[in-house]
Amino acid sequence: MDIFGTIAFAISGVLTALSKRLDPFGILIIAFVTAVGGGTLRDILIDANVAWMRDLTYVYVIFGSTIFAVLFRKRLGYIRRSLFMFDTIGIALYTIVGVEKGIAAGFHPIICISLGTITACFGGVIRDILCNQIPIIFRKEIYATACILGASAYFILLKTAMPLEFVVIISGAIVFTVRLLAVYFNLSLPTIYRKDELEKLDE
Amino acid sequence: MDIFGTIAFAISGVLTALSKRLDPFGILIIAFVTAVGGGTLRDILIDANVAWMRDLTYVYVIFGSTIFAVLFRKRLGYIRRSLFMFDTIGIALYTIVGVEKGIAAGFHPIICISLGTITACFGGVIRDILCNQIPIIFRKEIYATACILGASAYFILLKTAMPLEFVVIISGAIVFTVRLLAVYFNLSLPTIYRKDELEKLDE
Amino acid sequence: MDIFGTIAFAISGVLTALSKRLDPFGILIIAFVTAVGGGTLRDILIDANVAWMRDLTYVYVIFGSTIFAVLFRKRLGYIRRSLFMFDTIGIALYTIVGVEKGIAAGFHPIICISLGTITACFGGVIRDILCNQIPIIFRKEIYATACILGASAYFILLKTAMPLEFVVIISGAIVFTVRLLAVYFNLSLPTIYRKDELEKLDE
Repeated sequence: MDIFGTIAFAISGVLTALSKRLDPFGILIIAFVTAVGGGTLRDILIDANVAWMRDLTYVYVIFGSTIFAVLFRKRLGYIRRSLFMFDTIGIALYTIVGVEKGIAAGFHPIICISLGTITACFGGVIRDILCNQIPIIFRKEIYATACILGASAYFILLKTAMPLEFVVIISGAIVFTVRLLAVYFNLSLPTIYRKDELEKLDE
Repeated sequence: MDIFGTIAFAISGVLTALSKRLDPFGILIIAFVTAVGGGTLRDILIDANVAWMRDLTYVYVIFGSTIFAVLFRKRLGYIRRSLFMFDTIGIALYTIVGVEKGIAAGFHPIICISLGTITACFGGVIRDILCNQIPIIFRKEIYATACILGASAYFILLKTAMPLEFVVIISGAIVFTVRLLAVYFNLSLPTIYRKDELEKLDE
Repeated sequence: MDIFGTIAFAISGVLTALSKRLDPFGILIIAFVTAVGGGTLRDILIDANVAWMRDLTYVYVIFGSTIFAVLFRKRLGYIRRSLFMFDTIGIALYTIVGVEKGIAAGFHPIICISLGTITACFGGVIRDILCNQIPIIFRKEIYATACILGASAYFILLKTAMPLEFVVIISGAIVFTVRLLAVYFNLSLPTIYRKDELEKLDE
């Protein structure tokens, strides 16, 4: 199941790289970074072994997804909806993985929630930095917010007598559902800017 | 005292994020990164535990400062002077903390001076990269230079018979004073460009 | 020999920083990051001690190269060819160093090839990010490709009965030669974009 997330993130990296007209090597790097960047940052922060360096499955999956996405880039428009599904499953899974790695390393729940969010979101942040644009998740979408809500639910549910599998499934489903509803109804975080502030952008 | 620096850096992050019209989550991330980025990079480089992951005080302080800065952003113009004071105390403290962590880990003085400067300056560098602008400290102000001077003074004073508390206070005061004077008298590093070089910027 | 690579990378950092009109401190940082960035990222990923923090030779060499490059920046145009030679020797050496560090840490050949490429290329990537431009190696040149080919050759040659010194020399020479021929004949990776795709750049 983890593989679905990796595939979706790799493909989203390829699509961004294509829009910047990078060469094949650049595309591969961006795909790689998008798929493993969040987990790598998490592993460095908690001083754990970096996952993809010890398990080559990630490397093969990213390589395969990249070739697929480049070859079928014309068609990917039609399957954008299924891609979005993969991506949403991906952030749900990555969030839970990050939270659980944080718990295993003995961190406070707030830090574990941060680690879950980092795992799910920072691959995309690094992708956007390498492509020289302000990270999209800072600006428009309810993306990280879904991760924070799901990761918080994980800890609330842990305090009930619920078996662990249910905790995982429900909190993952919360990430998934919040993100799905946000995109469906085009929701974003409430703006904190007044109209006149938005009109005259500083600088 | 360390807290003043964290507050000032968090607020400076919020102000930058507001000027880029980021959403609330983006603002929080930028505030966080500005406040802990330098220390995190230092801890990763010397392979130590990342401070904010083990001590939640940082997280609470940054959260509080962010909410404060967003709510009172109109008024912050009036208190820019006090903000600048916090910031300057902040870099002085962060420089000394970085130097002392380097000494504790057994590094050469030159590396310790670098670690002090990294602790004080790189939160701002990461903030600027995430906001897609060339880091301001590379271009205009005597900022890192103040850190380097204070950190160097730390080692010179250590060689005297002076008690450690005085070494800390004096070298911190040097960072503070150099930075203060530089802003007061609008000093910057001597330019290395001739006039004709500055006129025709390449590219 | 490792020193040649450090010098060349530091000088290339200075030239980029000069073109962005950074101040002396900014130039020094960019020179430093270009020269040690790739190795630092490698050491963090494999959880090894960061090389330049334990061996000050790097620091002195980078400092000297930066002063030299700033003073003689007018003349550097004339010696661009020799600079290119240093740079090419540099990536060849850095690739092999990265591969061997990966082997010593017990990683799979594919990961070691990545580590060699990261060592040789990511200093330049970080330089370009700090200077707010899309990393050049993602777009135009056969640069990383040369590293990947040489690093792959290393493993193929290791399986023969060849003595280790020859493996090192031949695989290093492959990086060097591929890069040299690519620049000489102005080769780049085959484009994957059709003509109409290149004409209308998205966004």
